[in-house]
Amino acid sequence: MRDPLNALQWAGDRLWILDQRKLPKAVVWIEARTPSTVARAIETLAVRGAPAIGIAAAYGVALAGLVRNASSKSVQRSIERLRRTRPTAFNLFDALDRMQRVLDSAGDCDAEQLILTAIRYHEQDRNYCMKMARAGLKLFGKHEAVLTYCHTGALATGGIGTALGVIKHAHSKSRVKEVFACETRPVGQGARLTVWECAQSGVPVTLICDNMIGALMSARKIDRILVGADRIARNGDTSNKVGTYTLAVLAKRHKVPFHVVAPSTTFDFAMRSGKSIPIEEREETEITRVVPGLKSQRNIRIWNPAFDVTPAELITSFVTEQGVRRPPFKG
Amino acid sequence: MRDPLNALQWAGDRLWILDQRKLPKAVVWIEARTPSTVARAIETLAVRGAPAIGIAAAYGVALAGLVRNASSKSVQRSIERLRRTRPTAFNLFDALDRMQRVLDSAGDCDAEQLILTAIRYHEQDRNYCMKMARAGLKLFGKHEAVLTYCHTGALATGGIGTALGVIKHAHSKSRVKEVFACETRPVGQGARLTVWECAQSGVPVTLICDNMIGALMSARKIDRILVGADRIARNGDTSNKVGTYTLAVLAKRHKVPFHVVAPSTTFDFAMRSGKSIPIEEREETEITRVVPGLKSQRNIRIWNPAFDVTPAELITSFVTEQGVRRPPFKG
Repeated sequence: MRDPLNALQWAGDRLWILDQRKLPKAVVWIEARTPSTVARAIETLAVRGAPAIGIAAAYGVALAGLVRNASSKSVQRSIERLRRTRPTAFNLFDALDRMQRVLDSAGDCDAEQLILTAIRYHEQDRNYCMKMARAGLKLFGKHEAVLTYCHTGALATGGIGTALGVIKHAHSKSRVKEVFACETRPVGQGARLTVWECAQSGVPVTLICDNMIGALMSARKIDRILVGADRIARNGDTSNKVGTYTLAVLAKRHKVPFHVVAPSTTFDFAMRSGKSIPIEEREETEITRVVPGLKSQRNIRIWNPAFDVTPAELITSFVTEQGVRRPPFKG
Repeated sequence: MRDPLNALQWAGDRLWILDQRKLPKAVVWIEARTPSTVARAIETLAVRGAPAIGIAAAYGVALAGLVRNASSKSVQRSIERLRRTRPTAFNLFDALDRMQRVLDSAGDCDAEQLILTAIRYHEQDRNYCMKMARAGLKLFGKHEAVLTYCHTGALATGGIGTALGVIKHAHSKSRVKEVFACETRPVGQGARLTVWECAQSGVPVTLICDNMIGALMSARKIDRILVGADRIARNGDTSNKVGTYTLAVLAKRHKVPFHVVAPSTTFDFAMRSGKSIPIEEREETEITRVVPGLKSQRNIRIWNPAFDVTPAELITSFVTEQGVRRPPFKG
């Protein structure tokens, strides 16, 4: 039986991808033997979470090197295909740039080198997660109540997670007593994945809908908020799952420290501010499919942005594998 | 065929209640011949919206007077039963107090008088809706983009609605060009009812999830926000569907005028501030039922408050049947 908290498993000539759309109802694995299977898995959110997207893409390029009659040109096409899967998560581009450099330096398609690079990229993320967990520990007092958003745990990374990794580690050291998880509409990564991973890890978790965050902050003491990131600009503006900005605005009003946890692979040092971060808009059916009868209505529109941008001024600090930091950042 | 935009229809000896849980998929009517059928309809959200809850409760007492062997005592018991259906909406208590006075002054159970009072209460709300729509019109410039929350239209009242009534009226006068409606988890009154009623009324509407409000305000110009209310304290603190407070906090940051639309029957003049407003917490299954596999998970908790309180300082103005007002209020 495969470990579901290890959602991307390389098996020499194929990548096993845990299908996160099916959780928590079922643990289903996708066997990816081609880069296009990986690309579809990223597009359809079978694999999601910025670091996991990067790792999956790296393996996708490795698979391109293994495809029969692979050439430098065919691997190049796969890199380009994978580059179009999702626009916001910077880890995707970081990973593909790294694979591109291997392809360029080899001069020809060197499958072994591509595989080794993808494995090392995966391993690097695992190490970064642990370093973030240790660095983040110092933020906490004792027995804190922590709010988190979307899902940023093992499933979203190559290791124990970013924000949720820090939280799980802090819970194991008695610094966190309970976690509040937001549902995260429309895909429900919080309701499905964060709740599941907390339960798996023995962390007490309470689920709320996204619109209950203000009520929660008014009713109970929330000591700290930790979220992940999909791209961080040089000035610290951060794109993350849509709703993060609202959380940060409420945190400021309620004077709750607000931290972003992300490895350096999420930082886009070439981008000056969050204004230029591309925001992915996804299909209407992600929203309509859970409301019976909505799809058949005429003359209605639906807007489904997957991310928003939180300005740096609302972020207390950033936890990376290099420690707890503040902007501006440089590469 | 009954008019679905007239969700409470008195038929001499019974009340027809449009089952709002089934919309927009199906138009289904509940035939209520007893006060307990009305009470269950209120508890299960077949009828919801503060003014509609008050009207339904008034008819529920009228039905108590019509039940075979009705007595002053049995009507009294029905009033008490209806009083326990929902704790937050003040219109419920306003309506039941009015029916109580009829019962008290008659000395005995006077079914005819109870029915007439309920009909008049319904009629009064219809008039108040129209007066609010006319009073609210002066808030608008031309062709505004308006954001609203939950559902506050015809289905939620005895007339054209509170906030959505104002918006529909303003649209008919070319003051509103488009409406953004929030999904309103977990019951989805925005996604199911506001979208449906806008489509029925020819008002262009765009649906977003509750966590996209911040992204929307960052991305597009929202000229104005209008919401309803379930109870308004003397100082102007307002309880409304959970998520309203978050909307008001974001509105302040983005300098978007934020209006509460409610008839005087929603004002609890005896309550000094929002701190004392009772907040209803509803069953976990309202949240878990839409996430496959969530219910079977152990060691997780769910918190499901139905309302939150928006402090008066975040509210630009109140639209009532008496005009556009500011607190403090007195009866």
